[in-house]
This record gives sequence, C-alpha cells and structure tokens, in this order.
Amino acid sequence: MDRPIITLTTDFGLRDPSVGSVKGVILSIHPDVALVDLTHDLPRHAIASASYVLKMAATYFPAGSIHLAVVDPGVGSARRPLICSAGGRWYVGPDNGVFAEVCRGDPSSECHEIADPRFCLKPPRSSPTFQGRDVFAPAAAWLARGTPPGAFGPRVTDPVDLDSSQPAGAAPRHAASRRGEVIWIDRFGNLISGIAPDTGVAGFVVSVAGREVPFVTHYAEGPPDAPAALVNSDGLVEVFVNRGDAAALLGASIGAPVALIPLR
Amino acid sequence: MDRPIITLTTDFGLRDPSVGSVKGVILSIHPDVALVDLTHDLPRHAIASASYVLKMAATYFPAGSIHLAVVDPGVGSARRPLICSAGGRWYVGPDNGVFAEVCRGDPSSECHEIADPRFCLKPPRSSPTFQGRDVFAPAAAWLARGTPPGAFGPRVTDPVDLDSSQPAGAAPRHAASRRGEVIWIDRFGNLISGIAPDTGVAGFVVSVAGREVPFVTHYAEGPPDAPAALVNSDGLVEVFVNRGDAAALLGASIGAPVALIPLR
Amino acid sequence: MDRPIITLTTDFGLRDPSVGSVKGVILSIHPDVALVDLTHDLPRHAIASASYVLKMAATYFPAGSIHLAVVDPGVGSARRPLICSAGGRWYVGPDNGVFAEVCRGDPSSECHEIADPRFCLKPPRSSPTFQGRDVFAPAAAWLARGTPPGAFGPRVTDPVDLDSSQPAGAAPRHAASRRGEVIWIDRFGNLISGIAPDTGVAGFVVSVAGREVPFVTHYAEGPPDAPAALVNSDGLVEVFVNRGDAAALLGASIGAPVALIPLR
Repeated sequence: MDRPIITLTTDFGLRDPSVGSVKGVILSIHPDVALVDLTHDLPRHAIASASYVLKMAATYFPAGSIHLAVVDPGVGSARRPLICSAGGRWYVGPDNGVFAEVCRGDPSSECHEIADPRFCLKPPRSSPTFQGRDVFAPAAAWLARGTPPGAFGPRVTDPVDLDSSQPAGAAPRHAASRRGEVIWIDRFGNLISGIAPDTGVAGFVVSVAGREVPFVTHYAEGPPDAPAALVNSDGLVEVFVNRGDAAALLGASIGAPVALIPLR
Repeated sequence: MDRPIITLTTDFGLRDPSVGSVKGVILSIHPDVALVDLTHDLPRHAIASASYVLKMAATYFPAGSIHLAVVDPGVGSARRPLICSAGGRWYVGPDNGVFAEVCRGDPSSECHEIADPRFCLKPPRSSPTFQGRDVFAPAAAWLARGTPPGAFGPRVTDPVDLDSSQPAGAAPRHAASRRGEVIWIDRFGNLISGIAPDTGVAGFVVSVAGREVPFVTHYAEGPPDAPAALVNSDGLVEVFVNRGDAAALLGASIGAPVALIPLR
Repeated sequence: MDRPIITLTTDFGLRDPSVGSVKGVILSIHPDVALVDLTHDLPRHAIASASYVLKMAATYFPAGSIHLAVVDPGVGSARRPLICSAGGRWYVGPDNGVFAEVCRGDPSSECHEIADPRFCLKPPRSSPTFQGRDVFAPAAAWLARGTPPGAFGPRVTDPVDLDSSQPAGAAPRHAASRRGEVIWIDRFGNLISGIAPDTGVAGFVVSVAGREVPFVTHYAEGPPDAPAALVNSDGLVEVFVNRGDAAALLGASIGAPVALIPLR
C-alpha cells in the first residue's frame, strides 16, 4: 500500500512547538505517513479561511489523503470532534463548519464523531485546550492505519454548517448569493471573497471597504493605482490592484463584508 | 525497524537555506528518516527557550527519536558537541546547557562528546561557523543508522548546566525557586516563565516588567484589559491577558526577569 | 533504490496553500519521495537570489536529488519550462537563468524542455498562472520515478543566462568582475553580493548604498557600529556589521548595486 498522507491546516503558527507536537503524536501511532503542511498561518479562529484552504489544496492530493484542520474558536466547549469522508478524501477536525463546503459538494459524504477515548491522548499527557494534539492528531493517525470511521464513534447526520444557521445537509445555499466576506488574502494582497456568481457579473460592481470596485476580465486590465475585480480561476470574486496590494490600499482584512451591487 | 525520526530546533529562521542544508546532510547519510521541524524561530542564542521547546515537544515523539537542537552563542569556541541519551530519547547539540533539563529528569542519562572527525563534514564542504550542518547533522544521521554513542567520542560526565554555574550532575536546583525569567512567548503573547512552584502560589503575586500581577486559576478569570497569572498545564508560572497579548501590553521579551513576591 | 529527494525553492511564501498544492501533485505521482523546503521566502521574482540558494544548498544533498525552483517573472509568457542535469543533480524550473550558474559549473550539463503535455496537469485542474503546480511539480515527480529527461521534450542548447544578455553556453563571464548586486540578505542582515573576486581584494573597498566599506579578514574585526566587508567562506564579497544588521544600517535590499572600487 502507498504511504498514507496527512496534511495539516491550523492557526498555530510555526514559532511555537505546537505543530511539532501534533506531528510527534501522529508519527508515534503511524511512523510511515507523509506529513504535509498546507498552512499554519490561518487568522486565529477563521473558519471560512480554513474551509477555503482545504478547498483549494485538497483535490491536488491523491484519493485517500487525510486532511487535518484545526481552527477552533469553540475548543473546550461541547462541539463534537469529527471525521468526515467526502470526495474520496478524509477530513478530521472540529464540528464547526470547517468541512461544510467539502461535504456539501459530495451527496454521499459521511461524518462520524470521535467519541471513543481509546483513540485520544489521556492525562497527564493531554490538556483540555489542545485537542489538535490530543484528539485530532491521534484520530488522523489511526485512520491512516486503517481504522474504520465507525470505530471512532456514532454517525453524525447534522454537522454544523459554515454560517452556523443550518446543518450542512439542508438545502444548499443559493450559489448566486451576492453577499459574502473576504475569506482569504493571498501573498500579493489580493482579496478573495466567498462569492461565486453563477449568472455573471455584468451590470454589477463590488462593494468592499467603502469603495465601489469595477469588474475587468484579466489582471492586466486593472489600473496600476486603483482596485479592480474579476471572477478568478476558482470562480470566486476577487479584488486586486494590478502590480499592487489591494489589502493594504483598501485597509481590508479577512472577514470584511463584500457585496455585488447593481451598477448605477 | 520503524523509520527513525529526527526533529530540528534552531535559531536559523526559515528564510535562509540553512535548515535545508542541514536536512540535505542528514538525508545524504540516512535517506529514510522522517524529518520534523519543532521550531526555527528561537530567539537568537536563547538556550532556555530551546530547552523549553524540547521539554514541551519531545515526549510526544516515540521513544528512540533523535532531537537535534542548535542554539549556540559559543559556536567556534571550545565547548564540546554532545550526544545525550535521556528519557528514552536522543539529543544532539552543543554542550551549553540546552539539554541540562532533560538530563536532570533522568538519573540514568548519559552524554558523549562528538569527537571523531569521521562523523563530521570536512573542508571545503565544512565551515567553522556552521556546526549545525557540519557536526550535529551528520552525528544525528549516523545515530539514526545505529552507530552507538560511544563510537563518536568519550563519555562526558560534567555537561554544562543551564545557568552555567554548575554541571548538570550536581544537586538539583531548588524546584520551588521564586526567581526566573521569561523563557517563551507563545503566539498569543502569553509569557511563560521558568518558575515551577511546587508549594503553591497562595499569598504571592508575580513581579514582571515593573508590574505586580495577581494569580487566578483559569484563563477565563483574567480581566480583559490587565495581566493575570496562573500555573499552567505544564506546572509553570504564566502571565497572560484574557483575549489579549501580555507581551505587547507589558513590553516584555524573552529573558525578562520574573519573580514570585509575597502579597502585601 | 533509495527514496528520491525533491527540494523546493519558491517565492510563494508559507501563508498561502500554494506550496501544499505543489507537494500534493508530487505525492500523487510519486508517493514515496522525501520533500525538503529550501526556502519559500525568495523576494518576488528574484532570480539571482534563487540561483544563490540553489548553489548554497544543492551540494549538501546526495547525487540524484531533484531541485525544483519556481521564481518566475515571465509566467504565462513564452519562456520554456526546463529540466537541467548538472553536477550529478537535477534542476526543474523556468528557463530564465535560475540554473545558469549550476550549468556553467559543469561542462557536461544538459537541458531539456518540458514540452509533452502528458506530464502536465490539464484544465480544469490547471491554471495558466500556476506552472509551479501544473508543470514543474509533475515533471519533478515523473523524473523521480525514473522518466528519462529526453521523454519530456527536445534538448535545449541555448538556455537563458542569468544576465539575460547571452546564452549560458557562451564564454563564461569574467570571474573577477568587480560589479554585481546584493543577491541575498541573511537572517543577520548580512549583505551577500554576487561578486567572487579571484585575484584578491587588496587595494579595494566595497561601494554599496552610497558608502565605501573597507575590507577586513574576520567578522570579529569589524567595528560594532559601522559596516565592514570580507570575502566569505563561499568566496563571495559580503558586507556586515559586527553584532549588528548591515541591511538595516545601510537601508540596502536585494538587487542593490555593489562594486569593488580602488582604495584612494
């Protein structure tokens, strides 16, 4: 069998030894996995950003890969730790909506709770505030060893949705929603929104950070000193400055509201 | 045999190709090790911080793991390169106290000098100022291949202690010491001190950065705009601001003095 | 056969999931490679810096290692993707001069174009602006699986040279050139130039950032508050401040002109 792959997506940063401890726990259970960092620089507690990172990167990994995501405002509270199977990949992390989008994309997706304490670290080696190391890391490693998801705990049929207002299994949100927020700022300062317009953007401008930003079709069409918008190669509305930094120019950060509004 | 694990803890940063070169040397000698970064963002020359990182992370790796630590104000001077065995793990790095705490915790710990030049890179591939790549990396890789520690050089019975005033084998320092310093600042700005009070903290406050900080028992008890202290899950005195950044608020950095003083 | 090694050198940063996607593509094709990051913090589009990183680190990896380098101002334009063999190592990246120096060092170096689309990702999984993931990553992975370089495309006999003015196969530039630029700034703020003086530096000073900087022979000889220069252990002219930060003091960044001028 090929060497299993476990990817890591967290808000831990790389300065603290937290990521190292997570990897140590995984390698203690399965010494021959390939460990790949997706990012550890998620804005603290930014669930939509984690969801975006997974969506961007996960499909470039082979089927059967295990994606561990820890971004968890609710750590210590009662929300359930989950293992989800969707699109031929495994996802391990908190039930806070971080996997809602990948599950929504696969009608046969399935989630299980990580409930059996045999798969978790125990005191004094565990801490109530470090589930990434104590619950999610060992679950991912046991999954890589072939433990079936049903062994970890009961089936979960109502995973939390990203907007926290409805379970992910409910009717899909309208894909042409014209309201969203900045879910990622890439290294060039481009603002990526969660808005995926399915009926085109003709007749609209983007409202963000108090500005109305016109659409163009290619990056090169943007003026060098003012923001412009386009539908990017992932189908998402993106605001950029040609050879500049839109986040700095607009003073926008992750979570800033974005809307499509009719051109006047 | 399971794939051996070598972890890396340095003050090299990730921008320069130094960490990459260290890994190249290791893989040239042992192509099938798992390499795991603990941190490369140690404050320059901060031995106590390196010691803390190792203590936090090493026990989450399986027995037999090899922990390479390079934080070395004395590079180029006469201090000895060491291989230490303690608590079922291996430690490779300079004899400057970085392994004193892990050795102190295991009465059967043993250290050997890396003295045999057969295990080191040679000119023109080596440089007098890059022992991480030229001495510690190859030693760790040969150790992973099963070379016994005695083959590297003579037994060392007087490794340098962390406070540089006594060898690590001497009587342990009083565990209830009430004076220490900030040894780590985590990504939330929490100040972690080296003080491990074994008789409780009732009747004391923490003196740090010109402030007297009261103890609480849980993070949630701290006021949102002022520092508070607690004994953290590792038994160390920690100063924090509830949902804030204690390091920024107090202007404290690694090495800042910390003391427990009687409540007046 | 030993596990193949693929190293990664990019200007992608570690915040975005780009590096993770590149690794996912590689592991999808060859699940058992060792992946090693050299740096992902190259200044954007700094070809000379990438060339320097490769030169510094590549020889510490075993023969047969594959070095992927993506720093690519011309992405989307017509420049060719290349596989180069030089000095017993493989190099995969754009034909923009990034491999000119390693090729120049080996008279039997050979380059091939990556032209066969069978070795590249295809739409909708590919994007015209992400050749690192879509072209270079799969080529490196197929190379690691043993695909001969000639299978990827035709031989290239005129790879672009670093200064873009002549192909790399032409007469070597004069090694004693006295003009160059800052090609790297290390974590201590030392300015490393591309100037490799082969006839000594007696009678010269370094002109950089409007200052004339004298030569010394060891770092310890530099004054604590003023810049000094030396020929470093790699044979390159380097400007430093003893226990200080030359880049900050001089306000110099990568690409700043450097020259040796006669001492007056």
